[in-house]
Amino acid sequence: MLGSTHGTLTSDLRARVVACGEHPRDAIHDTASITATEGDIDVSGRSLYAPVPDLDRFFRPRSIAVVGASDGEGRPNTGITRQLIDWAERVGARLHPVHPTRETVFGLPCAASVGALSEQVDLAVLLVGDPLPVIGELAEAKVPFAVAFASGYAETGEEGAQAQRRLAAAVERAGVRLLGPNTNLNAFERFRDDLDGPAIALITQSGHQGRPVFTLQELGVRLSHWAPTGNEADLETADFISYFAERPEVGAIACYVEGLKDGRSFLLAADRAARRGVPVVAVKVGRTETGARTAASHTGKLTGADQVVDAAMRQYGVIRVDGLDELQDTSALLARARKPLAGGVAVYSISGGTGAHFADLAAAAGLPLPRLSEAKQSELHQWIPEYLSVANPIDNGGHPVGDWRGRKIIDALLADPGIGVLICPITGPFPPMSDRLAQDLVDAAETTDKLVCVVWGSPLGTEAAYRETLLGSSRVATFRTFGNCVTAVRAYLDHHRFTSDYRSPFDEAPRTLSPSFRKAQALMRPGRQLSEHAAKQLLRAYGIRVPREQLVTSAAAAVRAAALVGYPVVMKASGTRLAHKTELGLVKVGLTSASQVRDAYRELTDTVRYEDIDLDGVLVCQMVERGVEMVVGVAQDALFGPTVTVGLGGVLVEVLRDTAVRVPPFGEGQARAMLDELRGRALLDGVRGGPPMDVDALVEVVLRVQRMALELGGELSELDVNPLMVLPRGQGAVALDALAVCR
Amino acid sequence: MLGSTHGTLTSDLRARVVACGEHPRDAIHDTASITATEGDIDVSGRSLYAPVPDLDRFFRPRSIAVVGASDGEGRPNTGITRQLIDWAERVGARLHPVHPTRETVFGLPCAASVGALSEQVDLAVLLVGDPLPVIGELAEAKVPFAVAFASGYAETGEEGAQAQRRLAAAVERAGVRLLGPNTNLNAFERFRDDLDGPAIALITQSGHQGRPVFTLQELGVRLSHWAPTGNEADLETADFISYFAERPEVGAIACYVEGLKDGRSFLLAADRAARRGVPVVAVKVGRTETGARTAASHTGKLTGADQVVDAAMRQYGVIRVDGLDELQDTSALLARARKPLAGGVAVYSISGGTGAHFADLAAAAGLPLPRLSEAKQSELHQWIPEYLSVANPIDNGGHPVGDWRGRKIIDALLADPGIGVLICPITGPFPPMSDRLAQDLVDAAETTDKLVCVVWGSPLGTEAAYRETLLGSSRVATFRTFGNCVTAVRAYLDHHRFTSDYRSPFDEAPRTLSPSFRKAQALMRPGRQLSEHAAKQLLRAYGIRVPREQLVTSAAAAVRAAALVGYPVVMKASGTRLAHKTELGLVKVGLTSASQVRDAYRELTDTVRYEDIDLDGVLVCQMVERGVEMVVGVAQDALFGPTVTVGLGGVLVEVLRDTAVRVPPFGEGQARAMLDELRGRALLDGVRGGPPMDVDALVEVVLRVQRMALELGGELSELDVNPLMVLPRGQGAVALDALAVCR
Repeated sequence: MLGSTHGTLTSDLRARVVACGEHPRDAIHDTASITATEGDIDVSGRSLYAPVPDLDRFFRPRSIAVVGASDGEGRPNTGITRQLIDWAERVGARLHPVHPTRETVFGLPCAASVGALSEQVDLAVLLVGDPLPVIGELAEAKVPFAVAFASGYAETGEEGAQAQRRLAAAVERAGVRLLGPNTNLNAFERFRDDLDGPAIALITQSGHQGRPVFTLQELGVRLSHWAPTGNEADLETADFISYFAERPEVGAIACYVEGLKDGRSFLLAADRAARRGVPVVAVKVGRTETGARTAASHTGKLTGADQVVDAAMRQYGVIRVDGLDELQDTSALLARARKPLAGGVAVYSISGGTGAHFADLAAAAGLPLPRLSEAKQSELHQWIPEYLSVANPIDNGGHPVGDWRGRKIIDALLADPGIGVLICPITGPFPPMSDRLAQDLVDAAETTDKLVCVVWGSPLGTEAAYRETLLGSSRVATFRTFGNCVTAVRAYLDHHRFTSDYRSPFDEAPRTLSPSFRKAQALMRPGRQLSEHAAKQLLRAYGIRVPREQLVTSAAAAVRAAALVGYPVVMKASGTRLAHKTELGLVKVGLTSASQVRDAYRELTDTVRYEDIDLDGVLVCQMVERGVEMVVGVAQDALFGPTVTVGLGGVLVEVLRDTAVRVPPFGEGQARAMLDELRGRALLDGVRGGPPMDVDALVEVVLRVQRMALELGGELSELDVNPLMVLPRGQGAVALDALAVCR
Repeated sequence: MLGSTHGTLTSDLRARVVACGEHPRDAIHDTASITATEGDIDVSGRSLYAPVPDLDRFFRPRSIAVVGASDGEGRPNTGITRQLIDWAERVGARLHPVHPTRETVFGLPCAASVGALSEQVDLAVLLVGDPLPVIGELAEAKVPFAVAFASGYAETGEEGAQAQRRLAAAVERAGVRLLGPNTNLNAFERFRDDLDGPAIALITQSGHQGRPVFTLQELGVRLSHWAPTGNEADLETADFISYFAERPEVGAIACYVEGLKDGRSFLLAADRAARRGVPVVAVKVGRTETGARTAASHTGKLTGADQVVDAAMRQYGVIRVDGLDELQDTSALLARARKPLAGGVAVYSISGGTGAHFADLAAAAGLPLPRLSEAKQSELHQWIPEYLSVANPIDNGGHPVGDWRGRKIIDALLADPGIGVLICPITGPFPPMSDRLAQDLVDAAETTDKLVCVVWGSPLGTEAAYRETLLGSSRVATFRTFGNCVTAVRAYLDHHRFTSDYRSPFDEAPRTLSPSFRKAQALMRPGRQLSEHAAKQLLRAYGIRVPREQLVTSAAAAVRAAALVGYPVVMKASGTRLAHKTELGLVKVGLTSASQVRDAYRELTDTVRYEDIDLDGVLVCQMVERGVEMVVGVAQDALFGPTVTVGLGGVLVEVLRDTAVRVPPFGEGQARAMLDELRGRALLDGVRGGPPMDVDALVEVVLRVQRMALELGGELSELDVNPLMVLPRGQGAVALDALAVCR
């Protein structure tokens, strides 16, 4: 539909993937297409396209300038210079020290400036206290990349944030891509190059926090890149996600995120990874106020409202985990495991207790543990005593693992067409059993494309069966705790289910304003809250049903309006600054006669006079029969812009806070998924023999509210349709009250 | 009040503690008293007292008989015999092989039967396939303890369960205490005796599952006992908890539980541990149906309804964890850490990112991270650059740990009177920093009674700073993940808060029937559901308010009743098998006149005829003004007997399942805590400017329902007060409807 500019980028990328001569990972969607190109925007004015920076020369520079290089004893830059020289030697890059006064550094000839260098360099490492004056020089010397170590920027407060903006502006003018400031040399560490298979690419906003994932290399897990993004004056987490998602050697992207520079660029990068089938696993600080505050003081970034961040990540399949241990285990599994060949998980153990415990945790996390067929159970009982349960979990009682039967059992389980994952928890080493079991699992994993997981539960972790046998295999995923294994396998199954169904919401995001927009725009009152009546007109502009109603300013007019609207009626005070009308006694329901209407008018206007409230008039509204009260709303998030919320309405929205949120753009599937997240979901399905409610109409309202939020953008700072009365199926949904605040 | 038999046991126990010559752990309550003695029962007929079996000679037998001993090659009993001989040699016990035909076993003279032994033995290890015939022999030889290895009992089904009952009956007759069947030699493993300080005592229903905790000894954590309880035909988890709670060397009890033999004995044992201030940490399988089913097939035990198990554990301060890794880390911390000297936690790190991340997880788990005083922050800034945040978390930027400043910072934090716990997460080894930091923490921990925790986050765990420095200290609690550290510290603070406030509910459990009981008993109809009217009379018997109402059987009588009750009235069909009256159209509300009452009577009786329902008559009830609808109920749990539930009432109880449960006996504090567990708690506090509700009246109803549940016991299989209308504060609570089912 929007395909006019489509195709160029996709073809380019495919060409590059193939040119690298590696088989792209199996999860990549050949059918996915990136329809937008640079400059394309949606109806909210935001980009539909994230450029992929070409960072090949950043990560693998052929030549480096080290500005501020030093070999003086006791100087902080000396250690860094030494490390870079070692790194350059190892990877075969040329290194040029730059210093205004030194002749040589560590024996290498030193230039007075970047401009004075004999060759154009790919990367300038800026060790100087203030990198700003160097930026112009880099532009003249056509240096494409720079890394700035200096700190004292946004992490220190407003003055630093201004300095950071000046630096960002300078690099933009110069056409230099900058990593930092407030970063380090993690990108140029000693990566093991003897490991095979898909790798983890790591992005962290703190070097210390990335260390454990980096260290996984010593356990045999390949790592291809580490991007320590620091304050992200220029290059941000999203840039690296986009770049890594296109690298054929990257099997998974692991992130440690304190705050995001920009919500939209993050979503576009996550979208790219989702299209490519590349899993993104992230620790995101900011679950709590304490965490958010502390993170802000570390790199000067906002963490965003956590419920919104959480929803945004789920929308694009980003796997959020809490601990660095989970980040390691989950990203290692997702990087290396092939696509599941079946959805079922078999739990196999040498102890009934271990099987029971693991199965309990697995089932609690939603892992499917199908009961094995009677035929498969009979087959297993050839080798496992009859009195042990082999339905799944499979308890072998221990002894069969000590001989030839052990391998038979494993092979029989892996041959089950319903089983895609075999998990074997081993809580402790008993060398006669566990060593052979570990070896059999490693051997069997070589013969299958199914996933084989082992939990080595000994707290020591120094045993040979663990260090040598299990970690020596790249085909077995080895964990140390039941919990991390369950988390990772759950993420693995979820990821593949998510990417196989994935359709990018950006492909379907509206690019042209709807006819509703003109009507809505005319109703907006900048800086003010709309009256209930005006807010409902806004809803009507977007095709959302509201009750029949009239705004009146006299008792006589109220009676006439009631006759037109039809008895019984509801009457409410309407004003631009009115909220919580029920609490103020400004709503009268179930009025059935002209005299009741006249009395109600008098009471409402009296109350308003008493409370000294500005009034537009009194609304005379149609009474709506009983349904389920929901709330649908729009709020503005500092990171992600407008968000759409749906929840239980009425008094429950305040007490139970049973709400689900999404970041636009999203489609009908996500709107339905929002409802499934509500604890009170069943209210919509009809309770106590009542009829099911009109869920389709509710979903339609959510999508229309989204369209409004996108088109009005920041102009609509807040919208609250509460209650939205959802009627029985086929009867629709009616917005009984609405609050709208314009910016 | 009930003190007549009080005192004897307590004094005995104290005498023994002192006689052991060790200082009892600081958490023991000298003021706690065990008021009940053997034979004391509460009003439900259940024991108020758990005897503490004297298991000294079980765990440290002076002489052992091994029945079925073998040294024949390839026989399974040979390995076990060998292990026992080694163990006996090591601990200085005499071992006597017993076998009907062998002359010697491993060179030791072999007796034909236990009766033929030259000395009375403390323990008989029964390796024979069927231990039953040996039991009588043990009784004659006055052998106090036996361990049975044989399997094929309750874990295999009903036939095995019968065999187990026969075995249990035999040991009871014989006066022998039996461990097993379906157990092993874990109690007689090689325990390290070179470790100091309070120990973990371990109880597991699976040997494999206990192995990781046992292995903690190799990380320097002392273990004093291991009880592998198997099928618990006689000795059960509760016996070992009671015994360990009285051992001065035990600092914490770690349990792996698949099912409990008896709910009451478990609670009494947990109560003993709570009185003694001894923490009990437990993994309990059965979160899910899968786990419960699998556990039952492993040791033949019921797991109990998980929400009830969870509540019961919390009532007695048992710390439930999910993973064996959490079991290890939490029990090791609780065993060894002294009582907190202050409630605040300080997070200290060499990286702002690590501090932010850890603080986020800690705050999410409810750990208190108080902001340090300005004075303390100034003090810290002597050593830490001004631009780093030291408010808590404390970020030192890295460099200060490399020199003399590192120790100064740690000492300054430990000197803060608001800080009781110092946590230092180290995500990776940088020897120049992390080694010195680890050493400084270990040194500082020697000088304080405050808790010092370190997280060593490297996935390797082979580094010297971890293996030697940190694990070499019994004063520093070392973890491998942020998550486990947070869980353990939370449990540590919770445990000490819980035990310092602990009052045993058994001390206050009712022992004599209330006057209500006689009235209630007269209303019970065995095997039947009571009519609404009868169920309400049951409530009235226990002093719970019900609306004014009359049961009538004619329209004329209904009109008379309405006049007496007072308009407006509610009318409902009343019958012994009626439930869900609203859905059936059998409730008419808001009737304001005689004619409405007459019509309603006709409609109700017509409906009933149409639906073919047995009717007692029609209830004419007082309308009760609006309050908050709650539900209070009684159910019977297979393990724990009657339980009491409170929750949001009306339609919400079905949709949101927002309920809290407790196992009687419990006091007012727990009844209030139940309300705090409800997500909808705020409804009771008054919403949208409404008045707060009568929470005291609700609590009173919960306690009266508890009393009813205790007195009627199993006779009341089910009670559902729904809705209980809780009125505004000072106005009470009224049971508008009730369903009661008699056994």
